[in-house]
Parts: sequence; structure tokens; C-alpha cells
Amino acid sequence: MPVISHRGALMPPSPIRKLVPFADAAKKRGTKVYHLNIGQPDIVTPQSILDAVRHTDMKVLEYSPSAGFESYRKKLVTYYKRNNIDVTSNQIIVTTGGSEAIMFAIMSCLDPGDEIIIPEPFYANYNGFSTSSGVKVVPIPSGIEDGFSLPSIESFEKAVTTRTKAIMICNPNNPTGYLYSAEELNVLKEICLKHDLFLFSDEAYREFCYDGKKHISALSLEGLDEHAIVLDTISKRYSACGGRIGAFVTRNQSVLDAAMKFAQARLSPPSFAQILGEAAVDLPADYFDEVHAEYTSRRDLLVKRLQAMNGVMCPLPGGAFYAIARLPVDDAEKFCQWLLEGFSHNGATVMMAPAAGFYATPGKGKNEVRLAYVLNRDDINAAMDCLEAALKEYKN
Amino acid sequence: MPVISHRGALMPPSPIRKLVPFADAAKKRGTKVYHLNIGQPDIVTPQSILDAVRHTDMKVLEYSPSAGFESYRKKLVTYYKRNNIDVTSNQIIVTTGGSEAIMFAIMSCLDPGDEIIIPEPFYANYNGFSTSSGVKVVPIPSGIEDGFSLPSIESFEKAVTTRTKAIMICNPNNPTGYLYSAEELNVLKEICLKHDLFLFSDEAYREFCYDGKKHISALSLEGLDEHAIVLDTISKRYSACGGRIGAFVTRNQSVLDAAMKFAQARLSPPSFAQILGEAAVDLPADYFDEVHAEYTSRRDLLVKRLQAMNGVMCPLPGGAFYAIARLPVDDAEKFCQWLLEGFSHNGATVMMAPAAGFYATPGKGKNEVRLAYVLNRDDINAAMDCLEAALKEYKN
Repeated sequence: MPVISHRGALMPPSPIRKLVPFADAAKKRGTKVYHLNIGQPDIVTPQSILDAVRHTDMKVLEYSPSAGFESYRKKLVTYYKRNNIDVTSNQIIVTTGGSEAIMFAIMSCLDPGDEIIIPEPFYANYNGFSTSSGVKVVPIPSGIEDGFSLPSIESFEKAVTTRTKAIMICNPNNPTGYLYSAEELNVLKEICLKHDLFLFSDEAYREFCYDGKKHISALSLEGLDEHAIVLDTISKRYSACGGRIGAFVTRNQSVLDAAMKFAQARLSPPSFAQILGEAAVDLPADYFDEVHAEYTSRRDLLVKRLQAMNGVMCPLPGGAFYAIARLPVDDAEKFCQWLLEGFSHNGATVMMAPAAGFYATPGKGKNEVRLAYVLNRDDINAAMDCLEAALKEYKN
Repeated sequence: MPVISHRGALMPPSPIRKLVPFADAAKKRGTKVYHLNIGQPDIVTPQSILDAVRHTDMKVLEYSPSAGFESYRKKLVTYYKRNNIDVTSNQIIVTTGGSEAIMFAIMSCLDPGDEIIIPEPFYANYNGFSTSSGVKVVPIPSGIEDGFSLPSIESFEKAVTTRTKAIMICNPNNPTGYLYSAEELNVLKEICLKHDLFLFSDEAYREFCYDGKKHISALSLEGLDEHAIVLDTISKRYSACGGRIGAFVTRNQSVLDAAMKFAQARLSPPSFAQILGEAAVDLPADYFDEVHAEYTSRRDLLVKRLQAMNGVMCPLPGGAFYAIARLPVDDAEKFCQWLLEGFSHNGATVMMAPAAGFYATPGKGKNEVRLAYVLNRDDINAAMDCLEAALKEYKN
């Protein structure tokens, strides 16, 4: 019998899906499950961009160019310009979701055995894509006590080896919600320049910054043209996760040339959702205002409720739509499973993502969970009622 | 300055895109270019399946499950059943095009340094995906003199080493159009069983078989449940290349488990085109009759015209919509470039894919081209007029 590959065996299973069978079983028993475990926004996809797809009159659903439709890439130039990112359409490769942009960056810049430094906790699939491509993730700690701010320059310096090729950040951060400051980005810039490292900046949540803070793109940092690669997606921005459209953006021509070869091998990104993405660039300027207000109020509610619970710690996230909370439990994964298996409150329970899955260092984040505030305020309140009651019951 | 990866440097550029700048220049000069170089069908995408996308009433464009919508996978079960392939919906992972299915197979079954045997000439991107994943392609020759039939069992036996993990075929074949017989598939089965090898069978062109011949799927071969993996796509079947929907199908549970982890890392396949793919399963049974008749008449015309040219050899392909022709030239790539740069006939010229790009062995296929008969008969005739005139002019 033929056997699977080592990388197939080593590939980490998705940490946020482990609990899915327990959630399914809870629903079968008639328990309502509040899903705070995944970043699937409930915000409706703008009608006008769905209509752009509905009103297509193509005769043949052809391959698009490997880099994506030229008309879409030209539109994206104006989108990026509005966000203080000056790039040309030839510096953009349209990808199949942000996932493919991450993969193109790793494949184009790192070889098996090379190392990438990532502040932990981090988006779990960075680990998956690194494993699948033989790249070693070197985590450096950011802590809940410091609100998940950028690790010190010393932590980075200590982590750099001859095999280090890149630093990866997610800004604003999934899973912590942390928004990096200008000072922190300058620290990263100095390290990248000093050690000749690429800076991969996952900016999926660019528009989701709160309290008047502004997002700074890695491509807005001066002097980093050869180092900065932005990994982007329309998934969260326009509630268009199922479209599978992202972008790989850099001014480094050698990197673009390499990434284009990976892009050509898979032929093209999906056509329909490129049409949707192109229409999205024309959404009225105030589109994000409402979305923004909605997420701000959800965040405020969620964090207020969490902070009011005995023994719970939850720093106020500055961006994205995630928060990490430390719970007064020994093992958050066991607790999350118990919530689904053995608990209900008013006929409902809550599903959260155990945060350990976002840390690369074994044992870290064991009593932390990630909560995605992708539900409306009523549901968040009800979910927090569940959690509060559950913590009381679990302790006893 | 940071440098790109070795794999990024080693990654082969797409052989069918090399000549694109010359074609663009020809068009700029006002020369009409007949595109026989790529497998982009001109057949209209069935109205009813495009309408399925146009009539969606979703509110949120959500992630689909990583394995694809359950409703689509269940429909696919009926599609496969009609094609003598008995599988359950859990044995199907919906992929982003056939490309991703190829990648999942390589990643799930082979490690860097492992070897995959592929009869050459073969679909060039097999090379790309192997390079990107560190896998070594071991080509064994199929020849134009034998009409590109399966290499002898001795060729396979000679190529097997301790690192061989899989054999890959494309059936019917791109680029040769060859359709493997039951006897040939049994030879492959015996080799796979004897050496514990996976059999990757790319069946993108399953419906495109001519002269009353029937397609036999690797998943219809008895006793090969643990070895056979079918790589599939709706791209050519329904003229839906831009949808980017394919499938990874196997009965081997360990392989499915591994592939699911790669699928989860990239979250989900595109939603819109899954809706299109689901509608396609309900197309009337006679849908392929017309398509089939059209391709048959194109093939017959193309091959007749080629065989009538002095010094040209072109075996009659039994499937797909490609033919390989040997031309009376020293270097087909130079000739193809000259066709675009220095030739026109009645204001037109023809673009073909130099076949050397489909061979892994250096020097092979140097005087061969691949022609995709994806144009209507009038255009094929006009393109053959160009080629005939060009061969006369080029020789002098």
C-alpha cells in the first residue's frame, strides 16, 4: 500500500476546526451555538458588488490573465492610492484569496530550511503554509500583559540566524486585534534593512482600525521598496470571503518575476470574484463608515463584558475584529470543548477558538481564547451571558 | 538587498507564454493571430450554468466548507456515477481548478527528493508544481512515431527507484491527445501494485473521446482503491476555465486526510463557480453530443490539413482537443517566433506552442508543435492556410 508524504503527515490540522464535531453535536441536541470561533463576518456583502457578478454578460467563462484582469489591477491601483500605497498595476498579482498571496510570498522568498520570524500568537495557517513548503517558523513572543504589542528589537535580533529570510506580521493582527504603531513599524524596517530580510505584511484588516488610529502599510515605509511585500484580500473588507480574491503587492521586481511563475503554473485567479472585487473599488467612500461603527460598538461591548467577568483579562484591540482573552481556566481547549459538550444557558452555548493553536511555542496561550466579534450586539450579549455563566459553573 | 528563493529562481516559466510578447507585437502591426497555442475553448459556456450564478440570492458571500459545498459534492457523486466512477461525497475535495488538485496530490503523497514518473511529452505545469514542491520528475518517452501510446512496461520498470512514489498520466492526454486503452491502464495498474506507487490520473478531458472510444477512469480500475487519485476540473468540460473549480477524488482515506489539511490551510474553493459547477451536473444528457460533434469535425479538419502538408507528421489524436505535429523545421520555437515576427498570409498568422516545453528531456520535441483545436472550422482552415504558406516560405 502506498504511503502519504511526511509533509502530509506533519501538516497541522486547522486549530479552529478541531471543535467543529462537538459544535455539530450540540446543534443536533437543539442547543444554539454562538459562533465567535471564526472570522466569517455576518455583515451583508454590498448589494452593488454582488450585482456586478449577477449582471455579467460573458459568453465564455475564460481564464483571466495569470496576474488577474488588467482592468481590476488598474482599479486596485486607485484603491491602494487612497490608502497611501503608491504602486503600479504591474506590481500587483491578483491571487486566489489572501491564502495564495501568503503562499506566493513564502515560495518566492524562502527555501526549505529557511526561517521566518513571526510574533506569536499568529494566524494559524502561516504555520500550515510554512510546513507545506518546508520553511521553519521562528516565533517570538508578544504577550497579553503588553496588549500584544510588537516584541522588543532585542527579541528580533536574538531570533535572526543565517537562515532567516523574512519577518511576517499581520497588521491589524489576527488573532490579537493589535494595530502596529509607526514606531513599531520603524523598528521592523530597521531590522529588515540591517539583516536584508523581507517584510511580509498581511493587511487583510487594513480598514478595521479603531479609536481614530490610522493604518500604516508596509508599502508606505520609505526605503523598504525591495523588502516589503503586502499580502492582501477582499474577504473581510467587503464580507466576500467566498470569492477567494486577494493580492500580492510588492515593488521588488525579482520577487514579482518569481511570484508570476507560481501564478502562471496555476493559470489564473477566479474570474467571477474579480468582477466583484473591481466593483468594490467603486463603493461610495462612506461604505466603511457604517461597517466601522458597527464593529466598534461590537468590540466595545465584547471587551466590556469580558473585562467585567471575574478573573478574565482582555486587552482592548485596536483593529481587526478579534480579541484574545485570558480565562480563569487551566486548559482553554478543554473548556471550549466542555462548553459545546456539557453546558448550555438559556438553551445556548458559545464556541470560541482555543488560543494555543495560534502559538508556535508549546504550552503558550493555554488559558487563552480568541473571540471574533462577527455577530450583532444582541448575539454578543447572549454569548457573553453564556460565557459568564459557564465560567461560574466550570470553576465549581 | 534580500534575494529570492532558489525555488523561485528554478521555477520554470510557462512555455506557452514565452511567445506572447511576439503575438502582441504582431497584433499591434495589424496582423490577425490565430491562437492554436492555448487550451482556451471558444465553445460558449452553457447559458443555464452561467444563469445559476446570475440568479444567486445570497446575502453574504461566505466561505464554503474547505472540501467544497456539500450540495455540490453530492451532485458530483451522481456525475461520477454516470461516468462509471463509484465514490461518496466524502471522497471528493472540491479544488481551485485542476491545478490545485495536482498540487494537493503532489504535496500529500511526495516529499522533496521523491520521484514521479510521467510519460513525456506532458502538461508543462506538472513540472512547475513538481519544482515548487521539490519533487523530481522522471520522464519516460512516448513517441510521435507510436502515436504517443503508453511507454513499454520495461520503460516504467527501468525508471522506478527507491524514491519513486507515483506515476502521473493525463488521460486523454494534453498535449498529445492520446487516449489510453484498457490494456495500457492495466499495465499501469500492475506497475503501481507491484511497486506500491500512487497513480495520479488527470482526467480533465474525460468527455473528449472520439471514434466511439470510451474513457476509462483510474478510479474504475479494480484493486486500485488505495493507489488511484483522480485530478479533475470543470474548465474544459463546460468551457468554464475562469471559474477555477476542480476536484481531488480518491478512495484512499489517508490521502484524503492529508489533502484536507492542505485544503483547510487555504480555507475554501471559490463559491460562485461551485454554484456553476453544481448546475452543470444537471445539464441535459445530450449537452456533450453537440460539443463532441464540433470537436470531432475540428480535429478531422486540422489533422487532414496537417497530414496534407509536405514533411509534416501528425498522428490522429483519440481524445482531448490537442494534436502534436512534427514540422519540417530545425527548431519549432524559432519557427513559431518567426511566424509571429516575420510572416503573414492574407493579413494573418498562426500561434502554436513549441512542443519542447512539454518534454522534460532536453532536446526532445524540438521540431514539434502542439496545436489546440479550439477555433471554429473556418478559422482552423485559415490558420492551416497560414501554416502551409509559412512552411513553404520558411524552407526557402
